[in-house]
Amino acid sequence: MTYIIKGDGSKEKYDEKKLAKSLKRAGADKHTIEQIKALVRKKIYNGMTTKELFGLAFREFRKLQPIVAPKYDLKGALYRFGRSGFPFEALIERILVFQGFECRRNVTSHGKAVTHEIDVKAKKGSQVLMVECKHKSKEHLTIHIQTPLYVYARFLDVKKEFTKPMLATNTKFSGHSTRYAKSVGLRLLGWSYPKDDSLQSNIEKYKAYPITMLRGITPDLLERCIKKEVLLLSDIHGKSPEQLATLLGIAFQKAKKIAEQCKVCELK
Amino acid sequence: MTYIIKGDGSKEKYDEKKLAKSLKRAGADKHTIEQIKALVRKKIYNGMTTKELFGLAFREFRKLQPIVAPKYDLKGALYRFGRSGFPFEALIERILVFQGFECRRNVTSHGKAVTHEIDVKAKKGSQVLMVECKHKSKEHLTIHIQTPLYVYARFLDVKKEFTKPMLATNTKFSGHSTRYAKSVGLRLLGWSYPKDDSLQSNIEKYKAYPITMLRGITPDLLERCIKKEVLLLSDIHGKSPEQLATLLGIAFQKAKKIAEQCKVCELK
Repeated sequence: MTYIIKGDGSKEKYDEKKLAKSLKRAGADKHTIEQIKALVRKKIYNGMTTKELFGLAFREFRKLQPIVAPKYDLKGALYRFGRSGFPFEALIERILVFQGFECRRNVTSHGKAVTHEIDVKAKKGSQVLMVECKHKSKEHLTIHIQTPLYVYARFLDVKKEFTKPMLATNTKFSGHSTRYAKSVGLRLLGWSYPKDDSLQSNIEKYKAYPITMLRGITPDLLERCIKKEVLLLSDIHGKSPEQLATLLGIAFQKAKKIAEQCKVCELK
Repeated sequence: MTYIIKGDGSKEKYDEKKLAKSLKRAGADKHTIEQIKALVRKKIYNGMTTKELFGLAFREFRKLQPIVAPKYDLKGALYRFGRSGFPFEALIERILVFQGFECRRNVTSHGKAVTHEIDVKAKKGSQVLMVECKHKSKEHLTIHIQTPLYVYARFLDVKKEFTKPMLATNTKFSGHSTRYAKSVGLRLLGWSYPKDDSLQSNIEKYKAYPITMLRGITPDLLERCIKKEVLLLSDIHGKSPEQLATLLGIAFQKAKKIAEQCKVCELK
């Protein structure tokens, strides 16, 4: 029996089926899955961290299916995304637009008591969502009860203007948070939550792949992308390397590599 | 004209009257105030920080009125107090007890949606306060709108058990926080707020001087005090140096100095 160490320090039995499932979800084909399983079987040792295990599988995945593999690192891409706060809000806005909402960002709303800055105001029919976005750039930072509590209280103050509160994050919600949200009617969108309508399933459904899925994206390049409102790979997909080089002010060779990686948008 | 630099980096004209007022409030007598004013006049320079200015005045104050002077550093004592979170809650409980409340700390309350840990539950007649304590160990960390929002939402969830929410802190509230609190009926207690019923005026009124007013208190000594539930100077005032040495496991000479400093409790 081989044990791996999770990010929070706890031990877990290594489960080959779980690995295969996550690879399959990201679009790995049978051959790739078998290759990675075999490699891991050879390299794994008691006490290997999930991070090391992920790195091992990811590098092999990238060798075998370079266009598909970045989908396997969506979580990492979301952590790298939006360190400045703004891009994550923009990503959530994009997803809501895909869902048929009309959106506005950074809306000032005059509540009963005070004025609030609302990250995203999203309208569809008679529904008006008050959306609060919480981006975390480190793993294992769960959204604890305080956040849904204050989002709900804020909603109560601006209730005239909105019909429902929503809280979006790239990380997980605590059990308290999800129970509370259900009870007061706060819509949650986060990592793996809710199961059938989670952040990653929405990203996959709408191919709203964040630009941080690009291999080895530097803070400088991310900055340039954000300035040009290039947040998703689909924003630049289809552009020629020449166009990309001009748009982002980068070398042609780099632009070529980026254009190649945008092909992930063509996958079914 | 001499300018001093405030903690947040802003400039302010040096105001001798303001200095005198704060010294008087702490109990400095006329002679002390005159001495300190003269010393500051000699030593002040353009760009002196308020921290330096405070240190200059405090050291002189301590020379002239050693028993009274620690009251001048109440803000600092509160910052040093309760780094572990617990002592500040205990201080707030003590003040509420002085105000005639019956208190319990760390109460588990089953709300409509989820279970909450309430810092202090305080009863007086038909009033039942749900008290949340926020201790900050660094200056210039204002309580922003999110905190009163979540405290109020928590109150709504446990409303069956409580009649009013309260938020206590050793620091300041933002303007948004105080406006919101007024609007929803959230009682606030903080540094200089509300003006006539602030944390420091309550501490002065009830002589609830935190143990961290002791000169040069070490983290180790603070730890010992907390273990013995010695939170306020009044908890040990009147004890002999021998008793203190035994209670806190410290040297007699140190105990003697501490006993001397407890005389602040005798001041009118």
